[in-house]
Amino acid sequence: MNLLDEELEVENGVKNGCFPLAFELEPETIAIQEAVRVILKGLGEDLNREGIKKTPFRVAKALRQGTRGYKQKVQDFVQSALFPETGLEDGQAGGVGGLVVIRDLDHYSYCESCLLPFQVKCHIGYVPSGQRVLGLSKFSRVADVFAKRLQEPQRLAEEICSALQHWVEPSGVAVVLQCSHPYHGFVELTVTSGSGGFEDESSDLWCEFLSLLKFKGVKLSRDVSVVEDWCPFVIGNSSDTDSEMVLAVVSILKALGEDPSRKELVSTPTRFLKWMMKFQKVNFEMKLNRFHCKLKERRLCCEMNIKFWSMCEHHLLPFYGVVHVGYFCGDGPKPVERSVVESIVKFYGFKLQVQERMTRQIAETFSPQVNGDIIVVVEAEHTCMISRGIEKFGSSTATVAVLGRFSSDLSARTKFLEGIQKT
Amino acid sequence: MNLLDEELEVENGVKNGCFPLAFELEPETIAIQEAVRVILKGLGEDLNREGIKKTPFRVAKALRQGTRGYKQKVQDFVQSALFPETGLEDGQAGGVGGLVVIRDLDHYSYCESCLLPFQVKCHIGYVPSGQRVLGLSKFSRVADVFAKRLQEPQRLAEEICSALQHWVEPSGVAVVLQCSHPYHGFVELTVTSGSGGFEDESSDLWCEFLSLLKFKGVKLSRDVSVVEDWCPFVIGNSSDTDSEMVLAVVSILKALGEDPSRKELVSTPTRFLKWMMKFQKVNFEMKLNRFHCKLKERRLCCEMNIKFWSMCEHHLLPFYGVVHVGYFCGDGPKPVERSVVESIVKFYGFKLQVQERMTRQIAETFSPQVNGDIIVVVEAEHTCMISRGIEKFGSSTATVAVLGRFSSDLSARTKFLEGIQKT
Repeated sequence: MNLLDEELEVENGVKNGCFPLAFELEPETIAIQEAVRVILKGLGEDLNREGIKKTPFRVAKALRQGTRGYKQKVQDFVQSALFPETGLEDGQAGGVGGLVVIRDLDHYSYCESCLLPFQVKCHIGYVPSGQRVLGLSKFSRVADVFAKRLQEPQRLAEEICSALQHWVEPSGVAVVLQCSHPYHGFVELTVTSGSGGFEDESSDLWCEFLSLLKFKGVKLSRDVSVVEDWCPFVIGNSSDTDSEMVLAVVSILKALGEDPSRKELVSTPTRFLKWMMKFQKVNFEMKLNRFHCKLKERRLCCEMNIKFWSMCEHHLLPFYGVVHVGYFCGDGPKPVERSVVESIVKFYGFKLQVQERMTRQIAETFSPQVNGDIIVVVEAEHTCMISRGIEKFGSSTATVAVLGRFSSDLSARTKFLEGIQKT
Repeated sequence: MNLLDEELEVENGVKNGCFPLAFELEPETIAIQEAVRVILKGLGEDLNREGIKKTPFRVAKALRQGTRGYKQKVQDFVQSALFPETGLEDGQAGGVGGLVVIRDLDHYSYCESCLLPFQVKCHIGYVPSGQRVLGLSKFSRVADVFAKRLQEPQRLAEEICSALQHWVEPSGVAVVLQCSHPYHGFVELTVTSGSGGFEDESSDLWCEFLSLLKFKGVKLSRDVSVVEDWCPFVIGNSSDTDSEMVLAVVSILKALGEDPSRKELVSTPTRFLKWMMKFQKVNFEMKLNRFHCKLKERRLCCEMNIKFWSMCEHHLLPFYGVVHVGYFCGDGPKPVERSVVESIVKFYGFKLQVQERMTRQIAETFSPQVNGDIIVVVEAEHTCMISRGIEKFGSSTATVAVLGRFSSDLSARTKFLEGIQKT
C-alpha cells in the first residue's frame, strides 16, 4: 500500500477510491437516513421543511465520516513512514532513546455513551528505538484511526498507545488526552496511557514528558475516572422513550458497524434520545407576564452572557454559546427580569434551529416587552464546525438582530457592542 | 451536484471519485516529481537516501493538494446550502438584514511570490438578503477554494468576498484575513475586502463587524500593504541560481495549472530557490574555537530560546522554533559563548533535516566542548503539520537529547526542564 492509498483511506474511509460514488446507495447510508427520519418525526418535525429535508443525508454522511476509523488500519499509515535515524552510543538522542513529544493535536471523537461528538486535544510522547523514527504527521493519523469511532476517553488513549507501541516498536509510548464532552457546559477529563518505559506513571520518563507538556497548560487530574462520570447523560432503568425511536438508533449503531448489544452501548439509544427529546418541537408556556412600560428617560439596559444550548437542524449536532440582549428602559426597575430573558432564550434554544433564526426569534419575542427597540447578539460555537469533514477547531459565529431605534441609532448599537467586549 | 460530490471535490480536488487511483501516473504528478529531483540534486543531496527517497512524491502530493482550489467551483458548495430563513419587516434579523459573523477559520495558502505556505485566520461577515442564509461550514469551504491556490493576501480576501457576494447575493460581504508568512520569524499582515453594504470601510456596518471581531484580538493595521513588503523574499534583477533548477520550478508552476509568465510569478522560481539554497548540503566552517574547560565546582548552565529555522526533508517545508541547551560549568566565564551555540544551531538548521536528528547533532557537536554532559531540547512548529492533508493548526513538537551525566541524573534534567517552563 503506498502513500497515496493511505491518503485516500484517510479521506474517504475505505481503500477503494470509487467508494463515494456509491455512497448514497449503500445500505448503511440508507439505514441511517431512515433512522434519522424516524427521530425527526418523533421530535414532531415536518420532514419536508426546507431546512431539514436533507438532514437525514447530512447526518448519515457525518456519522459515517466520523466513524471511518473502523475501516482503517494503523499499519497502512505507519509502515511507509518509519525513517532510519541514527542514535548515540553514549546518550539518548535521535533514533535511539531521545524523547520525542508531539503536542496539541486537535481531534474529535464520538461518545459511545450518548453519540455526541467530543473534543480531544492529544499529546503523544515516545522514545525511538532501533534507529528509526516515525513521521510526525502519522501520530495524528494514528490518533485519528481510533478517534473516529464510538469511544470513551480512557479506551481511546489506550488504543492509540498500544497501536503505536505495536507498529513503531519504540522503547515506550505515552499518550495524554484532554477531552471535553458537550453538555450544558462541558465535562473535562484528562486521561493517560503508557507502555514500555512509560508503563509506570511515576517514572522519570513520565516526569520528563509531563514537564514538556506542563507549559502547554496540561495538568493531570483524576477527578472523573469512569465512563458514567464522564458522559453526563446518565439514565435510570426505566424510560418512556418511544420504542420505534430506540430501534432507529439501534439501527444507526448497526449501520456504523457496531454491536448494539456491546455492554457500553446497551443504553446508548436511550441516552441519545433523552438528549434529542430536549429539542422537541413543542410550545411550552412562556412566562412573559410583564408588559409595556411607560418610559420617560430612557437608558440602555443590557442582559449579557445568557448561556444557551441548541441543536443545528442541518446536522442534528449541538451548538452553544451566549446571548446578549440590549433595550431601553426608564430609571425604575427593569421592565423584564433576567429570568424571563433566560426563559425566552431557553425556549428558542431547545428546538432544531439555525443561529440566525434563533437570534431573530428572540428579538421578535422580546420586542413587544420593551417598546420595540431591541438588539440581540448571539455568539456560538457549532459542533458541526469542529466535526464532520470541516474540522475548524476554534471557530465561532456571531449573529445580530436589531429592531426599532437600534436599526438607525449607531451610537446605541456601538455602546451595546462595546458592552459585550467588556464582559 | 449533490452534497456527496461536493465533499469529494473538496477532498480530492476533482469531481471524479476515481481520480486518486491514477494520481501517481498523471503527467502533472510526474512533472513535479522530476522537478523536485532536480532541486534535490542542486542542493547536493543523495536522491537514494532513505529519508528523501520518497520526498519528490510527497512534495508533488502536497503541492497538488495545496492548490486543488483551481479545480473547484464555488457554486458547487454554495448552491445546495442556501436555506430559506424569514427576516423581519421592521428590523434587521434572520434572512433579511441581520449581520452574521463567522470568526477564526484556520486555513493555509501558498505564497505566489515564494511558494511557501502561509497561515490565514479568516473572518467573514455578511448581511443576508432575499430571505435566505448560507450554511456556516460553506464559508470555510468557499475560503478554501481560493486559499488552495498560489495567492497573495489582498487578492485572496477579494476573491472570497466577491465569490460570496456573487453566489449568495446578500446585502453585503466583508472579509478580514490575518495572514502570517514564514520567514526568520513571521511577517504578519491583515487585509480586508468588502462589497455591497461593506464597500465603504468607514460605514456603520464595518464598524459593527469589527466590533464583533475586536474581542477576538483582531486589529486592522495597514503597515504592510503591497506584495513586495508582504513576502520577505525580495530579489534583485541578477541571480546566479542554476538555470536547470529555475526551469524545474517553472515546470512545477505549469504542472499546478499556473502561467509562469504571469507578472506575479515571473520571479517566483528565483525567490523559491533563493530560500531553498539556504538549506544546501554544505559544510561551512564552524567557529568552535573554544575547548574543554577544567571544572571544579560545577553548576548547571543554560542557553535558552535560541531561534532556528530548518527544512523538513520529507516534505521540503520549513520547520522553526527554539533550541534550549544545558550543560555544566565552573564558576568562571561560560566555556562556550552563546554566539557559538547559535552557530551550531544555525549550522544544523540550514539543511534538509528531521527534528530528531537535528537535536542529536547539536548534542553531539556540543558535547566535547562541555566534557560530555549535555541536554538539548528542540521545540518546533512544522509547516508540514499545518498544511497538506493534515492541517493540525497549533500543534508543536519537542525533542530531547541527553548525554553523559544528564542521562542518569534526573534532578539535573528536571532542573533544566523547569528552566524551559520559566522562559
